[in-house]
Amino acid sequence: MMALVYHGPGKKSWEQKPLPVIQKPTDAVVKILKTTICGTDLHIMKGDVPEVTDGRIIGHEGVGIIEEVGTGVSNFKKGDHVLISCITSCGKCEYCKKGMYSHCEDGGWILGHLIDGTQAEYVRIPHADNSLYPIPAGSDEEALVMLSDILPTGFECGVLNGQVQPGDTIAIVGSGPIGLAALLTAQFYSPAEIIMVDMDDNRLEVAKTFGATQTINSRNVDVIEKIKSLTNGKGVDTAIEAVGTPDTFELCAEIIAPGGRVANIGVHGKSATLHLETLWAKNITITTRLVDTVTTPMLLKTVQSKKLDPNNLITHHFKLDQIIEAYDTFGNAAKEKALKVILTN
Amino acid sequence: MMALVYHGPGKKSWEQKPLPVIQKPTDAVVKILKTTICGTDLHIMKGDVPEVTDGRIIGHEGVGIIEEVGTGVSNFKKGDHVLISCITSCGKCEYCKKGMYSHCEDGGWILGHLIDGTQAEYVRIPHADNSLYPIPAGSDEEALVMLSDILPTGFECGVLNGQVQPGDTIAIVGSGPIGLAALLTAQFYSPAEIIMVDMDDNRLEVAKTFGATQTINSRNVDVIEKIKSLTNGKGVDTAIEAVGTPDTFELCAEIIAPGGRVANIGVHGKSATLHLETLWAKNITITTRLVDTVTTPMLLKTVQSKKLDPNNLITHHFKLDQIIEAYDTFGNAAKEKALKVILTN
Repeated sequence: MMALVYHGPGKKSWEQKPLPVIQKPTDAVVKILKTTICGTDLHIMKGDVPEVTDGRIIGHEGVGIIEEVGTGVSNFKKGDHVLISCITSCGKCEYCKKGMYSHCEDGGWILGHLIDGTQAEYVRIPHADNSLYPIPAGSDEEALVMLSDILPTGFECGVLNGQVQPGDTIAIVGSGPIGLAALLTAQFYSPAEIIMVDMDDNRLEVAKTFGATQTINSRNVDVIEKIKSLTNGKGVDTAIEAVGTPDTFELCAEIIAPGGRVANIGVHGKSATLHLETLWAKNITITTRLVDTVTTPMLLKTVQSKKLDPNNLITHHFKLDQIIEAYDTFGNAAKEKALKVILTN
Repeated sequence: MMALVYHGPGKKSWEQKPLPVIQKPTDAVVKILKTTICGTDLHIMKGDVPEVTDGRIIGHEGVGIIEEVGTGVSNFKKGDHVLISCITSCGKCEYCKKGMYSHCEDGGWILGHLIDGTQAEYVRIPHADNSLYPIPAGSDEEALVMLSDILPTGFECGVLNGQVQPGDTIAIVGSGPIGLAALLTAQFYSPAEIIMVDMDDNRLEVAKTFGATQTINSRNVDVIEKIKSLTNGKGVDTAIEAVGTPDTFELCAEIIAPGGRVANIGVHGKSATLHLETLWAKNITITTRLVDTVTTPMLLKTVQSKKLDPNNLITHHFKLDQIIEAYDTFGNAAKEKALKVILTN
């Protein structure tokens, strides 16, 4: 089969690889129908994720058709259409039993990371009964690719951890795909105001069409002053960090009202300063989370009931064998006005 | 009347002051029966709390008898025995309606801070209906002084924010009065292990008699290694910070398991480093809180039902006019083996 293979920092190729095979009774092999590229994949390609070694097939999102299942798999059979979760979960360890699949003792985020991933014609999925979800007949399968990672990430790490409530004023710092996923899913809970902060006017325009009630370009405006002026000097109920830098995290901690929540989604490479000298008395909550994908069945239902349209996040389409070109487009997201790209096998 | 008066950094005196009078219909004047000294009062005396100005009567804890009430007070009458909350709450602002009395727009922590306090023969209590609690007949009034601040602080900021659950393994960093208040009230929720961390062997011995299952003296032992060894390498479910330094906060963030909670109680004067480069994916929650005293009625019931014995926290007794001596004792807590002192009027 053909697959996108990482060969060390800055080196990737679309090349021949052996077909994956069932290794354990709980495995399935899935033929990829649709996949996509994640911001994390760009980090991997730069060499920022050293656990990813030369020869690894990248990718942790996609929908496909079951090609083969191990003898221990009971939820799926050959021919079933499935959504692949970015998180592999055994369902039976201490963390899985708490619904914290991200820390599964025989899984977590391993796909396209510690084992071969989805940017290929076929992929092996361990613990298939827990790591795949059945796709209802008649579904828009392209849209569902957004449920592999980006939508549960924005929803669980941002909206649920941020405890967004009806009538709340929330800010989302970062209007890239993950921030927009938080913006879309925050609206399940009917906040009064959603203030979107970014440095890119195009992304802020997109945010407006997605439901943002206010946008702030932090290149031109003092975000703290602006948010104070929008909230009677109090700050927001929830600030969602969707960038992953010390500056944006510290901004979130600065703009929340007493009793507020900072929900971190961003992948961070550096520590941040926590201003406990003011925050100690401010009754705040800060959360971090690697997505558990525990809400995937819930999100599937919101797509079916048209409460959520993931197609909004898809800006570009390629054939799977054009993946190198797709990486170039996605890697120049601002210039190309790219959010998510769909790759069709 | 006589009162303890702050006269700038390092200067205090026990001196004559005018009797407090009703200023607003919602005020009460209370004759003090018992009061105490808080670690915060020591900070004030050093000049660390610049809002406290020359001439201020200090103190924010105590029990007393109603001397006079304003025309707007309906819950209390002259002669009632009352517990004074360290937090004044109007009961009708946005924050009070959320139960966040600490941020009351016409109150919060003002007693012995922005208005005259309880280390005196009499004190004026604003918003008396919401800021005083009736003391049940036959109560141990000395014990109840511990409910003005220290017990709700340990309970709300540490135990409730830390979401202590049956079977949990928790660590409390700091075995002073506040850490011990958290230790006592954590046991409402039947954690499996309570690990107490301090640098003072006497305080750790006290912690053992209060129910700690493990103690670690951080002068002699690598706390992180020790806690890993006690928790199969995973860390604790909840770490309660009861000191107020960057080091102890950062220790708490280091010793929690994936999915764990850091509940800050400490009053901080400096920022801390938040290691988001590891914490971003660890599914953790960090909370801060100025005590709301919203659980005071609950704690009163736990004292009455003998689930909680606040007398454990009282080590020294003085007459109110010996308050300068009491400050000396409390200010040398380690040498004097002092926890809380009771001052009787």
